[in-house]
Amino acid sequence: MTPSELNIQVPFVPATRYPIVIGRDFVSGLLARLREQFPKRRPFVISDANLQKSGWLDKLIGADTVGRFVIDPAGEDSKTWATVGAIVEAMEHLSLGRDTLVIGLGGGTVGDMAGFAASIFKRGVPVVHVPTTTVAQADSAIGGKTSVDSSQSKNAFGTFHHPAGVYIDVATLGTLDDRQFRAGLVESVKHALIADAGYFAFLETNLDAILARDLDRLEQLAGFNCRIKGAVVEQDPTETNQRRLLNYGHTIGHAVESAAAYRLLHGEAVAIGIAAALQIEKQMGLADADRIERVCALLCRLSVPLVIPTDLSTDSFMDLLTRDKKTVGGWPRFVLLEKIGKPLVRSGQYAHEVAPEIVRSILNPHA
Amino acid sequence: MTPSELNIQVPFVPATRYPIVIGRDFVSGLLARLREQFPKRRPFVISDANLQKSGWLDKLIGADTVGRFVIDPAGEDSKTWATVGAIVEAMEHLSLGRDTLVIGLGGGTVGDMAGFAASIFKRGVPVVHVPTTTVAQADSAIGGKTSVDSSQSKNAFGTFHHPAGVYIDVATLGTLDDRQFRAGLVESVKHALIADAGYFAFLETNLDAILARDLDRLEQLAGFNCRIKGAVVEQDPTETNQRRLLNYGHTIGHAVESAAAYRLLHGEAVAIGIAAALQIEKQMGLADADRIERVCALLCRLSVPLVIPTDLSTDSFMDLLTRDKKTVGGWPRFVLLEKIGKPLVRSGQYAHEVAPEIVRSILNPHA
Repeated sequence: MTPSELNIQVPFVPATRYPIVIGRDFVSGLLARLREQFPKRRPFVISDANLQKSGWLDKLIGADTVGRFVIDPAGEDSKTWATVGAIVEAMEHLSLGRDTLVIGLGGGTVGDMAGFAASIFKRGVPVVHVPTTTVAQADSAIGGKTSVDSSQSKNAFGTFHHPAGVYIDVATLGTLDDRQFRAGLVESVKHALIADAGYFAFLETNLDAILARDLDRLEQLAGFNCRIKGAVVEQDPTETNQRRLLNYGHTIGHAVESAAAYRLLHGEAVAIGIAAALQIEKQMGLADADRIERVCALLCRLSVPLVIPTDLSTDSFMDLLTRDKKTVGGWPRFVLLEKIGKPLVRSGQYAHEVAPEIVRSILNPHA
Repeated sequence: MTPSELNIQVPFVPATRYPIVIGRDFVSGLLARLREQFPKRRPFVISDANLQKSGWLDKLIGADTVGRFVIDPAGEDSKTWATVGAIVEAMEHLSLGRDTLVIGLGGGTVGDMAGFAASIFKRGVPVVHVPTTTVAQADSAIGGKTSVDSSQSKNAFGTFHHPAGVYIDVATLGTLDDRQFRAGLVESVKHALIADAGYFAFLETNLDAILARDLDRLEQLAGFNCRIKGAVVEQDPTETNQRRLLNYGHTIGHAVESAAAYRLLHGEAVAIGIAAALQIEKQMGLADADRIERVCALLCRLSVPLVIPTDLSTDSFMDLLTRDKKTVGGWPRFVLLEKIGKPLVRSGQYAHEVAPEIVRSILNPHA
């Protein structure tokens, strides 16, 4: 008897919507509000030692007896398989079920882990993100990517799990460490560059007020970021083409980040990547002097590094680029701009071939 | 300034198809065949010590240098968060990427863990199941449920991740332990009961040949099971209504299983659950003597237990039922049959209210 064959049709998951709420000073009332909004769900809060120390976790929880898990120490070193295992075991210990609502309060690492825990607890429960850093509010809280690091690479294990809501309270940025605050703004610059020249001009005009953490400006900033990132994610949720735009500055940025073994913050590595992309665009005749000056000037005002650390050899750096997740034939494609707010699109493609010699020449300009 | 609100639309995931191939003696050529079928993917095999011992893992791999992870010891005790963590770290160690194809060779625990590992590695890579037990071939390899156990409950953590293909080689059943083989057939009886009187008659006629592991009959058996389970999963992938049919015998079965602390195999607990459902149907005037006799006779031929272990008090058992995952107002609903092959459907619903007194009376018939 020869093998017989059946076919199973897996139906689609229908479209859903989620709100992104932007405001200030609402963290204190948020848990009660979420209890009202999800009356049949039992909340569980995931946060970290930084948010405990800065008082925001207490503000969120108040006198509520809600279950919670505080990641300690905070930061990338805790972003592990073991930590998420400890989180979901803690949820089991409270006899939580499919009617759980996970609330993640914190920066990118908290959000990535809270989303991951929610996505695998009882095969998936909803998560609400309350991002508290510039990078989380602009970027990582939106888009549904969840993850932990492996012993060898960042974000190696995870899921796609879109949140049930994102609550951005810009007042939480008030207690953020200055280096973190500035580095996180690089993703805002990236959003302006790939999508909106008016937003870029807003950043030029208002950067001092933003750096002074003026709440009105921070709300406007969050609005720009969420509209841009939201629109891209809506258009291309599985990152087949247009979502690649979000990788502007990230191809070289990721290589710098892994070569520097995390001495650099993500946003700092992306700043170096954006400066490198600009050099590539210049060599390819895409960028004029005025654009180069405006972009560099804005990044300089953020006090982020713009040059690849000199302790990396060109050869080892080129080798790192061949390990990019999105290589085609062993070499990455690059998102490039035509002008500020307008990406280069050729034959409908958003990522382009760049000759290795061009990349080599910008890595080693005095060779 | 009051909070402003945006809305993100998460688009649907489109429908996809996957094949279920049923045959015999094809395990030896399967890896080469999958390499051909997925030419751009690097395979990685997940199996366990049982399959290594029985020789099937060697048959699958042959002289191929494919990466592999052998779960040792085999069985439920290894079905943990830590094991899946070790699997995905092993995959990282081989520098596997998004172009990986996971191949799971084994019974339900291997399939659940291989599917889970695939679903979270680099945010999801495809998995192909090669089920080697009666329960995995009839049930767990189809439907996309993946999981590990927590320290407190079965299948506590996991995902929905539909396979890219299911390859059922009935020859692998030849080396299966007899108790496992028989218990796994209870899911086949369940499929016949909820969907197909002709299949039930086939089982009555051919059970001796099936128990003698006649390969022709085992192929036919796999065909019946996959068509029934496949059709139900297609109709209702998220278990909102019709998929509940698959829970026939499982409401009391799950309670028996957790009360017996896994002294019983899953299929054995379900056999007890089916016998209990039959008693409920009898008390509700749904089952006639002929049906009761036919179902009990078939289950008896499988040598599975049909009576709830006497070391459980009725009260503690009733309490366990209130903890069922799918309670409504603290009491589970039950799938019931009108006759063999025909479930009871009232007002479009497949799960029904059963008075606690009825359940109590069948638990303690001599009270």
